[in-house]
Amino acid sequence: MAFTPLHDRVLVRRVESDEKTKGGLIIPDSAKEKPQEGEVVAVGAGARDEDGERIAMDVKQGDRILFGKWSGTEITIDGEELLIMKESDILGVTA
Amino acid sequence: MAFTPLHDRVLVRRVESDEKTKGGLIIPDSAKEKPQEGEVVAVGAGARDEDGERIAMDVKQGDRILFGKWSGTEITIDGEELLIMKESDILGVTA
Amino acid sequence: MAFTPLHDRVLVRRVESDEKTKGGLIIPDSAKEKPQEGEVVAVGAGARDEDGERIAMDVKQGDRILFGKWSGTEITIDGEELLIMKESDILGVTA
Amino acid sequence: MAFTPLHDRVLVRRVESDEKTKGGLIIPDSAKEKPQEGEVVAVGAGARDEDGERIAMDVKQGDRILFGKWSGTEITIDGEELLIMKESDILGVTA
Amino acid sequence: MAFTPLHDRVLVRRVESDEKTKGGLIIPDSAKEKPQEGEVVAVGAGARDEDGERIAMDVKQGDRILFGKWSGTEITIDGEELLIMKESDILGVTA
Amino acid sequence: MAFTPLHDRVLVRRVESDEKTKGGLIIPDSAKEKPQEGEVVAVGAGARDEDGERIAMDVKQGDRILFGKWSGTEITIDGEELLIMKESDILGVTA
Amino acid sequence: MAFTPLHDRVLVRRVESDEKTKGGLIIPDSAKEKPQEGEVVAVGAGARDEDGERIAMDVKQGDRILFGKWSGTEITIDGEELLIMKESDILGVTA
Repeated sequence: MAFTPLHDRVLVRRVESDEKTKGGLIIPDSAKEKPQEGEVVAVGAGARDEDGERIAMDVKQGDRILFGKWSGTEITIDGEELLIMKESDILGVTA
Repeated sequence: MAFTPLHDRVLVRRVESDEKTKGGLIIPDSAKEKPQEGEVVAVGAGARDEDGERIAMDVKQGDRILFGKWSGTEITIDGEELLIMKESDILGVTA
Repeated sequence: MAFTPLHDRVLVRRVESDEKTKGGLIIPDSAKEKPQEGEVVAVGAGARDEDGERIAMDVKQGDRILFGKWSGTEITIDGEELLIMKESDILGVTA
Repeated sequence: MAFTPLHDRVLVRRVESDEKTKGGLIIPDSAKEKPQEGEVVAVGAGARDEDGERIAMDVKQGDRILFGKWSGTEITIDGEELLIMKESDILGVTA
Repeated sequence: MAFTPLHDRVLVRRVESDEKTKGGLIIPDSAKEKPQEGEVVAVGAGARDEDGERIAMDVKQGDRILFGKWSGTEITIDGEELLIMKESDILGVTA
Repeated sequence: MAFTPLHDRVLVRRVESDEKTKGGLIIPDSAKEKPQEGEVVAVGAGARDEDGERIAMDVKQGDRILFGKWSGTEITIDGEELLIMKESDILGVTA
Repeated sequence: MAFTPLHDRVLVRRVESDEKTKGGLIIPDSAKEKPQEGEVVAVGAGARDEDGERIAMDVKQGDRILFGKWSGTEITIDGEELLIMKESDILGVTA
């Protein structure tokens, strides 16, 4: 079932820790405020600037990202636990 | 009796849980902060940008949407319990 | 005695509950946060956008509206109890 | 002694209650949050929009106005008690 | 020693009460929130609008002004106690 | 070692009290909220307006300034105690 | 593994204290609110102005910077402890 985030929101799948060691990004679960890693599942069409024009999104489907620990709202789609967050909650993209 | 939301507001009908399992979107009622599912009944003409121009709405009548648990104000129209909320309270559209 | 609201304010007459049942809009007085129904008596010339241009109002005299329970300031004109509120307090227009 | 309010401020003389009954506007002093009636004595040149252009005032000298109960700062000019307030504190103009 | 206020700030000399009675402006010291009278000693070049353009000041050196009781920061220049405040703290200009 | 402040920040050296009496600016240390005197060591390239254009700074290297008592962050460069602050913390320039 | 900060964020490596004495910048660890020194590892593409246009960053990879003590979020990349912060948290660039 497709889900399209609205405006500048992003649908994100959390990336579990074992994948992380292979990718070199070490984020021990015990860490308090440590950012979380995830993968972009879907992006919105973008917010609008003050003239009502669309603002292009800086992340796209498939990007691996880091986001703030408390970012986003949890949602279940087709039985899978995902997160909806604003693009501004994303710290950066890992290649 | 028709009701037209003002500016960027949206009139929403809550979608009950059984319909949800068929649609694949599982949102157990017991879930604390889980987003709610609904259907758009009517949309406003849109807010205005800083030059006073209309900003087109991103949702339309009939869209199935997800919105934040505490969004909107309850209202009864023709005996039916509905919600009025801002478009910015909507997380996304499910196809 | 005429009264012209300033900027984007609206003068509103509350609509009593019996009229409501005929109109189909059921808002039981006992309801805590339920929106109130009313009729627009007069509208201001509109607020100004950032270039100082007038922004047209979306409601007009005679419109039947729904507004937030705690919106507006009470005022008595020619012995009648009315409300002055901002247009942004209005949830929508009922036909 | 002339006094010119700055930017979008307005100098206001309170209108006493007896005048009010003649004018039809009944605002019993005992009323808690009831708006107050007054007359515009002088207006500023207006605030500036984001391009630094003047924004014309919507009230002028001699207008009879209604303003929020707690609006404005008291000042005495030539022995008379007056109020200085922002135009945005004014609810509307009575004819 | 010259002192030029920055941006939209104004250097102000308080005007003592005896001068006030001659000028007709009666502000008894004992008054709690009463505005204070003063004279403009120097003005800044003005703030900038959102396009970075200068916004002309509405007061000039020598103007007699009224300002809010708690406005400004005290400073001593050449042994004289003066006030530095924002133009927006000034209520108006007395002629 | 050169240090260039970012955006609209300013690097400031505090001016000690004895210099002050010669310059006529008397700011007794004991004064609670009294502004402080200082000298501009370096300025940033300026902030940007809403169109992304640079906004020229109003102070330059060598200016003698007054700034709010609690403004700025302390930093030591080449063993000297200096302050980094925003231009908007500066009250004015003394000649 | 490359990491590209989003919008106007910057990836920063803390510079340890011994390098500091050679560079002349003395920031004793014991100091409470003292700014920290670091080196820019990567910068984002920049934020957007109100017209949606990119705003160029003022710092670049390799710059030595000073930033506020509590700025940024800690993250580990390839086993190294780094910081992600907004450009506006950076006080200035040391040559």
